[in-house]
Amino acid sequence: MEQVRVIEIKKSIYEDNNARAQMLRDELKKKGIFLLNLMSSPGSGKTTTLKQTIARLKETYRIGVMEADIDSDVDARAIAETGAKSIQLHTGGMCHLDADMTRQGLDALETNDIELAILENVGNLVCPAEFDTGASKNAMILSVPEGDDKPLKYPLMFTVCDVFLINKIDVMPYFDFDMEKCRKNILMRNPNAVIIPICAKTGEGVDAFADWLKEQVSEWKK
Amino acid sequence: MEQVRVIEIKKSIYEDNNARAQMLRDELKKKGIFLLNLMSSPGSGKTTTLKQTIARLKETYRIGVMEADIDSDVDARAIAETGAKSIQLHTGGMCHLDADMTRQGLDALETNDIELAILENVGNLVCPAEFDTGASKNAMILSVPEGDDKPLKYPLMFTVCDVFLINKIDVMPYFDFDMEKCRKNILMRNPNAVIIPICAKTGEGVDAFADWLKEQVSEWKK
Repeated sequence: MEQVRVIEIKKSIYEDNNARAQMLRDELKKKGIFLLNLMSSPGSGKTTTLKQTIARLKETYRIGVMEADIDSDVDARAIAETGAKSIQLHTGGMCHLDADMTRQGLDALETNDIELAILENVGNLVCPAEFDTGASKNAMILSVPEGDDKPLKYPLMFTVCDVFLINKIDVMPYFDFDMEKCRKNILMRNPNAVIIPICAKTGEGVDAFADWLKEQVSEWKK
Repeated sequence: MEQVRVIEIKKSIYEDNNARAQMLRDELKKKGIFLLNLMSSPGSGKTTTLKQTIARLKETYRIGVMEADIDSDVDARAIAETGAKSIQLHTGGMCHLDADMTRQGLDALETNDIELAILENVGNLVCPAEFDTGASKNAMILSVPEGDDKPLKYPLMFTVCDVFLINKIDVMPYFDFDMEKCRKNILMRNPNAVIIPICAKTGEGVDAFADWLKEQVSEWKK
């Protein structure tokens, strides 16, 4: 009984959220604001990747970053160093952001003069995949030390993302990570996936991601 | 309004779960079954660590392992190779196990002849920390590539665990990971934390974890 009740609540939460996310996406489209939702496991390198990406795009776009974290503000401080507008969203224990929380973040970011808004979601491969934030596109970072089998274990995350950054390729020699197996596992979940190997620490491969992002922003503004 | 309603539901779920978890823990204590709940991020090395631990304890205890996963069964197959009794629990998209799901797992594992039961929880640093499974002790693996700042970002997980295995110490030279800073961050969340550096791939440090586990099981059976 208990189990069934909880599932029904969850279902209605998802449906409500999906409708709100679509509404937010439509509003952002009208305003010409592209919103990227960046997801990954804890410690996969989201903030370092963002710093490298912002360095490549800050002359092209006015960028605003929302750093979602349960408690700390270390990430927002790191992003502020890039010169991009940055705010920290404290989720108060919540494991994901939903469309309403994202809207609150965008309001706080005062996005009216922003062209590219980026949401760094909570480090988690499960719950953030279930909640549409209203983003224009979803990106995911999988780091080499996590293993090439992750698409088998976290199917929804690999289904909902548009682009996959395989980070920390500099340490490949020290891990049992097979890039071809990883590609195959991702493409099984999502045949349209764009897969870009990077090293956020050195910046290797980040140009390709910045180019992908530019294409998406141009497409969005049409 | 919406937000408040959700939070109230969550609160009652937690309270119900806590009561059920305590009931399960009491029953296990009476039967002399020690239950370890093992948590970590995706790809931190839970299954590899378990394989090494089982190799060291399988002559001492009758061991049963529950591998929780959203969809796949790769982990249960890996554990079965050790000779330990092993089952796969599919959570069907759920991001954590609660006390009822753990009880179902224990029933399926037919624990009556088992002395040490181990639950490998879903790879996630947020939600599993919120749901007491009824375990005798909680263990967590933090791997070097994830970074020494994780206790700042996932406070509850580092508060609820009793022992912390710092895994993948073999790759420390290739990452900006400060073991002393990590210790300090963990002890800030949990002054009683036991911290054991290991390399699950080579087995380094796993003896210390097996010894800790033996002490806990003896204490539990008193």
